[in-house]
Amino acid sequence: MDLLEEKFLKLGAEHAPGQEGRQNMSEIKLRGEKIPGTPVDFSHGDVDAFQPIPGSLDVFNEGVHLGGKQAYTEYRGSQIIREDAARKLAHFTGTSIDADRNLIITPGTQGALFLAMGSIIARGDKVAIVVPDYFANRKLVEFFDGEVVPIQMDYFQTNRCAGLDLTQLEDAFKDGVKLFLFSNPNNPTGVIYSSDEISEIAKLANRYGVTVIADELYSRQIFDGNTYTHLCAESDIDPEQVITIMGPSKTESQSGYRLGVAFGSSKIINRMEKLQAIVSLRAGGYSQAVLKTWFAEPEGWMTKRIAQHQAIRDDLLSKLHTAEGFHVRATEAGSYLFPSIPELEVTIEEFVKILRLQADVIVTPGTEFGSQFVNSFRINFSQDHQAAVAAMERVIQVVEFYRK
Amino acid sequence: MDLLEEKFLKLGAEHAPGQEGRQNMSEIKLRGEKIPGTPVDFSHGDVDAFQPIPGSLDVFNEGVHLGGKQAYTEYRGSQIIREDAARKLAHFTGTSIDADRNLIITPGTQGALFLAMGSIIARGDKVAIVVPDYFANRKLVEFFDGEVVPIQMDYFQTNRCAGLDLTQLEDAFKDGVKLFLFSNPNNPTGVIYSSDEISEIAKLANRYGVTVIADELYSRQIFDGNTYTHLCAESDIDPEQVITIMGPSKTESQSGYRLGVAFGSSKIINRMEKLQAIVSLRAGGYSQAVLKTWFAEPEGWMTKRIAQHQAIRDDLLSKLHTAEGFHVRATEAGSYLFPSIPELEVTIEEFVKILRLQADVIVTPGTEFGSQFVNSFRINFSQDHQAAVAAMERVIQVVEFYRK
Repeated sequence: MDLLEEKFLKLGAEHAPGQEGRQNMSEIKLRGEKIPGTPVDFSHGDVDAFQPIPGSLDVFNEGVHLGGKQAYTEYRGSQIIREDAARKLAHFTGTSIDADRNLIITPGTQGALFLAMGSIIARGDKVAIVVPDYFANRKLVEFFDGEVVPIQMDYFQTNRCAGLDLTQLEDAFKDGVKLFLFSNPNNPTGVIYSSDEISEIAKLANRYGVTVIADELYSRQIFDGNTYTHLCAESDIDPEQVITIMGPSKTESQSGYRLGVAFGSSKIINRMEKLQAIVSLRAGGYSQAVLKTWFAEPEGWMTKRIAQHQAIRDDLLSKLHTAEGFHVRATEAGSYLFPSIPELEVTIEEFVKILRLQADVIVTPGTEFGSQFVNSFRINFSQDHQAAVAAMERVIQVVEFYRK
Repeated sequence: MDLLEEKFLKLGAEHAPGQEGRQNMSEIKLRGEKIPGTPVDFSHGDVDAFQPIPGSLDVFNEGVHLGGKQAYTEYRGSQIIREDAARKLAHFTGTSIDADRNLIITPGTQGALFLAMGSIIARGDKVAIVVPDYFANRKLVEFFDGEVVPIQMDYFQTNRCAGLDLTQLEDAFKDGVKLFLFSNPNNPTGVIYSSDEISEIAKLANRYGVTVIADELYSRQIFDGNTYTHLCAESDIDPEQVITIMGPSKTESQSGYRLGVAFGSSKIINRMEKLQAIVSLRAGGYSQAVLKTWFAEPEGWMTKRIAQHQAIRDDLLSKLHTAEGFHVRATEAGSYLFPSIPELEVTIEEFVKILRLQADVIVTPGTEFGSQFVNSFRINFSQDHQAAVAAMERVIQVVEFYRK
């Protein structure tokens, strides 16, 4: 097998969220009857249940009517829109962001992540990533021929911090790690890094000269008045060492417009633009206009959206807490839950397929987030409230059928 | 300087079309007065002068109203839209295309090119590219750590074929080239490969087991009833060896929606989807809907559009033919002209900056398409007709000021 063959085998997307329709289901045998109920796809948020920011489409249409100057922006995105986004994000994070030097508009936050990692990782570079964390992180490091250095996060150990193993992180940094990448709130667990953890990450990165990418995609959707700390606002770290990634695809439901931003280090943003030039030129020109609605939502809209999600979380947690052998930490921010389940007589990948066939429920297997999560799955609970609760009841029933 | 630093230096986008606003102009000194006239940006087509296919925005809006299923498609794109595109492209090229296995929707044709090359090129692989050809081709090979093997195309030698050096191509194939990439019609010259040339490329690729990417972005805009031959329809080549790239960004003016397609080898399309999963997930979901308008233009629309472009070409050619020391081959398809100009006392990059300052005209320096084109520039003449002709007069005037 040649190198590229191997590389693309590792890049397998069969179990990735949203790709379930391409799975081979021929080997799956069900125990018990199909359980009826409204289908729920927990692999991503339901933008029909929680619609995009009001006015998103109007702003898109206005963008189209601007014509050529909206269609053909600089590769890093329209200057006017960058200026608007930079101002709003500087206010949100408590930092200063120069729209001309420190920010790029990208095709989704996935685009931002790809461009940032491609701009930092050279062949053989050590890259520390958290376990568990977003499923593409490992794949990106491998694609760019970096070496993954896993850092454990024991999210069940406490609820006062994320549970990142800072000793392991320091050892990794000492050992020559060039880049540290983490999502905050963490995907898939929904836990927030404490201000002590963020402060320590900043100090260690500074001490060992490590670049950090903070994926803050869900950082606006904070529950229970929790405290959130932006790494980029820490005084202990050189701003040129940090790239922060955000976007309106999740809480704001604008995923269909494929928009994200990365801000921070001007050197890395410059490289990201050069890479963007050969990857896909720019984020869709007309779509860029939609960023104007971001951080400019109608009065009370965001508060209500957060409250609605917190209510869904609470009902799902009640269900999960009464299910035998389930273990879960409450989401602190964002729309993910990452329960562990009792040992089954099938693998987690088989269980996911069974769940889809038998209960019309799609979840993402834990193994997408780290190979040891063979008894966990992730859900995105940004769904119709009643349908989500009923679907979780079906998940618990199916677990009963296959429990060891 | 580290490896990555070097890599990104080579990726320089300063002179790339559309990035002129980021150029350093401080060193430029002008001879003579500013020449007044309507500003023309020849670096890309003007979608205000030639607007997108009628109804594009309506179809986008319908896509948004479909909600979640349009926002979250499979990574390779919505199945319904792939089926529609596959049917239309099979008819256009005279091949058969299985929508499920042989086609992927991408963020623009740039996205298709990036994904295809990333799916084929392993470190150290030899990749043959035509000189001159699309400016990103070389950069893509270098980004993926491949080795560029240039194949000369002597487009001034004849007007009965593109002028590709087939002996050099065979030598390169013999010498272990893995991938051959070419645009047809050629960017920047607008010449079409003859059916003999295409047939010979197919035979050579087949004989030496070389994969071929055919970038056919402008293949619908054919002038003077010229013959166009699709490589993918050649019987001498295994369909699994070919990827064809097309999209509605140029003749159809839908660049602002960022849409492209790649079709052909199922093995490569599979890899492209895996790569898309980590690059930007998918082409913008709502934008994908706009592909429905492609190859479904109103009766007569395409014929008229082609005639309008041919008329602009003819007027520009008249101007160029009378300008002393200019040399140009007539565009056979697409909207590019690639004239060579007399020797100047400034470099072509300086000339391009001067032109922008002195005459409000933007062109792309020949050196973006091959380092030897120090006396050429490319224009995209999909512009307001009168403004384009007047701008070309100003270009000729400015050349006079700086001629050796």
